[in-house]
Amino acid sequence: MSKKANKGLTVKKSKDFSKWFSEIIEKAEIVDLRLDIKGFMVISPWGAAILEKMYRLFSDELESKGHKQTFMPSVIPEANLKKESSHVKGFTPEVFWLKEINKEKLALRPTSETLYTPIFKLWTRSYRDLPLKLYQRGSVFRLDTKATRPLIRTREILWIEAHDAFATKIQAEAQVQEDIDTTEKIMTNKLGIPFLPMKRPDWDKFAGAEYTVGSDCLMPDGKLIQQPSTHLMGQKFSKAFDAKFRNEKEENEYLWTTAYGPAVSRILVSVISTHGDDQGLILPSCVAPIHSIIIPIFKKENKEKIIKEAERIKSELEMLGLKTEIDLTEKSPGEKFNIWEMKGVPTRIELGEKELETKETNLFIRDTKEKRNLKLTELSKIKKELEDYDKRLLEKASKTFDGKIIECSTEKEIKKILDEGKIAKFNFCHTDEKGLECATKLEKKMNAEIRGTLANSNEKPKGNCLICNQKATQVVYMGRSY
Amino acid sequence: MSKKANKGLTVKKSKDFSKWFSEIIEKAEIVDLRLDIKGFMVISPWGAAILEKMYRLFSDELESKGHKQTFMPSVIPEANLKKESSHVKGFTPEVFWLKEINKEKLALRPTSETLYTPIFKLWTRSYRDLPLKLYQRGSVFRLDTKATRPLIRTREILWIEAHDAFATKIQAEAQVQEDIDTTEKIMTNKLGIPFLPMKRPDWDKFAGAEYTVGSDCLMPDGKLIQQPSTHLMGQKFSKAFDAKFRNEKEENEYLWTTAYGPAVSRILVSVISTHGDDQGLILPSCVAPIHSIIIPIFKKENKEKIIKEAERIKSELEMLGLKTEIDLTEKSPGEKFNIWEMKGVPTRIELGEKELETKETNLFIRDTKEKRNLKLTELSKIKKELEDYDKRLLEKASKTFDGKIIECSTEKEIKKILDEGKIAKFNFCHTDEKGLECATKLEKKMNAEIRGTLANSNEKPKGNCLICNQKATQVVYMGRSY
Repeated sequence: MSKKANKGLTVKKSKDFSKWFSEIIEKAEIVDLRLDIKGFMVISPWGAAILEKMYRLFSDELESKGHKQTFMPSVIPEANLKKESSHVKGFTPEVFWLKEINKEKLALRPTSETLYTPIFKLWTRSYRDLPLKLYQRGSVFRLDTKATRPLIRTREILWIEAHDAFATKIQAEAQVQEDIDTTEKIMTNKLGIPFLPMKRPDWDKFAGAEYTVGSDCLMPDGKLIQQPSTHLMGQKFSKAFDAKFRNEKEENEYLWTTAYGPAVSRILVSVISTHGDDQGLILPSCVAPIHSIIIPIFKKENKEKIIKEAERIKSELEMLGLKTEIDLTEKSPGEKFNIWEMKGVPTRIELGEKELETKETNLFIRDTKEKRNLKLTELSKIKKELEDYDKRLLEKASKTFDGKIIECSTEKEIKKILDEGKIAKFNFCHTDEKGLECATKLEKKMNAEIRGTLANSNEKPKGNCLICNQKATQVVYMGRSY
Repeated sequence: MSKKANKGLTVKKSKDFSKWFSEIIEKAEIVDLRLDIKGFMVISPWGAAILEKMYRLFSDELESKGHKQTFMPSVIPEANLKKESSHVKGFTPEVFWLKEINKEKLALRPTSETLYTPIFKLWTRSYRDLPLKLYQRGSVFRLDTKATRPLIRTREILWIEAHDAFATKIQAEAQVQEDIDTTEKIMTNKLGIPFLPMKRPDWDKFAGAEYTVGSDCLMPDGKLIQQPSTHLMGQKFSKAFDAKFRNEKEENEYLWTTAYGPAVSRILVSVISTHGDDQGLILPSCVAPIHSIIIPIFKKENKEKIIKEAERIKSELEMLGLKTEIDLTEKSPGEKFNIWEMKGVPTRIELGEKELETKETNLFIRDTKEKRNLKLTELSKIKKELEDYDKRLLEKASKTFDGKIIECSTEKEIKKILDEGKIAKFNFCHTDEKGLECATKLEKKMNAEIRGTLANSNEKPKGNCLICNQKATQVVYMGRSY
């Protein structure tokens, strides 16, 4: 395995992002594509360690907000899948079906509304049982018939899905906001990735939802990628499954439900793409499998002494909650530097005779590639360095992101902005069916999509729709996307 | 949900174990079977919390022994599955196939040797890359055509599988021993469940293995249930996949591989069955989602004061690493007692006016149902109580287990022992093909199976085979099983 990481990237991120991405995911040992099962991935140990940390970030956050873990079947009977008409229409084309067993038709779950809604029905009798907030981690399966791309467009998706039931629409809508907050807390505050919470146009919402808020993140090539989305299902699924509860007035009422689905394997795409550079990954510390790598530099005569000190440092750092490894492989120090830079470890400690004598080392910081003087008696300073490191990752990403959202007032401007790999923001007539004609025209011309309106602020348009020239009711964002 | 837990068990464990088990898994909110998808389960939050803890026990233990996490595809191409002939023969009848996509035949993985072996091939060039120890957590799928039973015999199994590759057979065999140690550390030392590590007779090994060591645990009805098993694959899979490495002599050699598969959803069966009583679950503290439940008993006028003290206690216990909840639902104290006893929470703290005045409470201990005086200023004593509690669970289970293994010297004795719900131990000719005839005869007569020989001790037979009267080479164990 190490042989690959050993070799650097052959292309610059700024020159050919797509090739850079294809190379880095294999050279940094995130995935191995050589089993060659279309749309299905082998996640290598380094990638798996990152994903496991991401899974736990989300499950801890969901649990802190009152969600309870469940394990649901990986399969869904056809009858369940068919209950909600727009849902089945939206999902059926991309469902993997199992070969029938005794005439029983089972699908691999593409998402689990049609399992959770009947469970809501069973588990809620009265408003006292509400809210009911559940989640699971696991795989979902979508038979994407377009070209698959590792991590970005796959047939098996590693994700977490939260499904919640409420007594009122107001509570369900508050949950959508809570989900956006969860996305912000993890994607932005922890992983350093800014996003636009986009309330999707009606024609682009989740199959079966009243509305959908997707999180659009920016890729280095200027395209958008959808990250966790949250859906107000309203009473659509509860009506389809006859899932009622007894409200405070002792009347039967349909449940109000929501769903939230962060795909960790896809979020990894944004982590890699947003922060990585021409030497490899740059991992936010909360998902870095190792915070500090110690490279001992020794000869036969001082080997024991140096390894002993390396072990002392490791144990002190681990006491501080920093995961630390000592690279004792037979490679040269230079090769080791390259490997761990490729893997995105935030800090590196070089340890040789000189460092032992002076009780000082140069702490290498992955993002800036600076070396900072560090006394071996003041190792706890690394914690502060990591805080600064994480801050810089977010600052840099935010600066790039903010600079790419450009207000436009003509079609020509939109075209120019999109061609520059940016996001256009402009006045638009309607994001419901009334605006579909304008949207279709514009999207075709621009080869881009209207991604929606800002979900968490009320932007007021000050003019007319660029297309039909009628009074605008929305400010929309348009971009090209994955 | 709570409605169900509210109602006690209608049958005693000692009277009708099977019915007791069916009731407890629903009343303690482990599973919900009402979605009714044959062989597929909904694991409820209480069950899921236990299983998540079990998953982490195993993954932490595997990582501490040098295993690295991976995520492998949930599907296996037919060509892979067919490479190892005895493996395909053993597994094909119970494989779920997906409907073909562009003539591509994919199976839901029943186990993952045929994914890991090609990965071993790709990731090992020389002996320096070895050992390579990998694992994943996730589901496997087996189309069991017999009657399915919740948690015991299911079509989707929640498990962890570790797959390891080595340079020598000696190392691979040492791994089998390490796997047995892992089973002992978790199943016995942590979960309080004794087991017999049984080297299976040749005719009963894993499809494709050189040999298999299964862990046989005892159910209250005297039947055995197989828990984690470990397999020496030898070079069978590496030959089938042409997975070679360069050894120290610079020669190409086939890898030596092993596999280990704890099914957490099945281990839960043993946890429930071994420790549970007529009031409900009794959970070992390492998998209890809550260690202490606080039941506040208040009137309007002292509510605030009592809840404040409950919160203080909770926060002090959580500082000690004990997960604590306060039951603030509207049920009566008696109902609450029943619910948390049903759910198997190890300790309970009642907190009312009297307890606040005397600064003392009676700590209810789930297994013995004793109440121990506990000063509210000495809460840390609960840790010691939990240690004793866990010890008692193991002691009780071990006593039962040891008492059920009986040496036999005639067929009549074996029959009697088996009919009493015990395990018979006796001299036997051979556990390879040479003994198959004797085994078949005996198994048919007894309606029971020869489970194998003790894997971690060298028991010497002192006589002749009970069946053929030839010189015995083995001491075997026979039992009825799930």
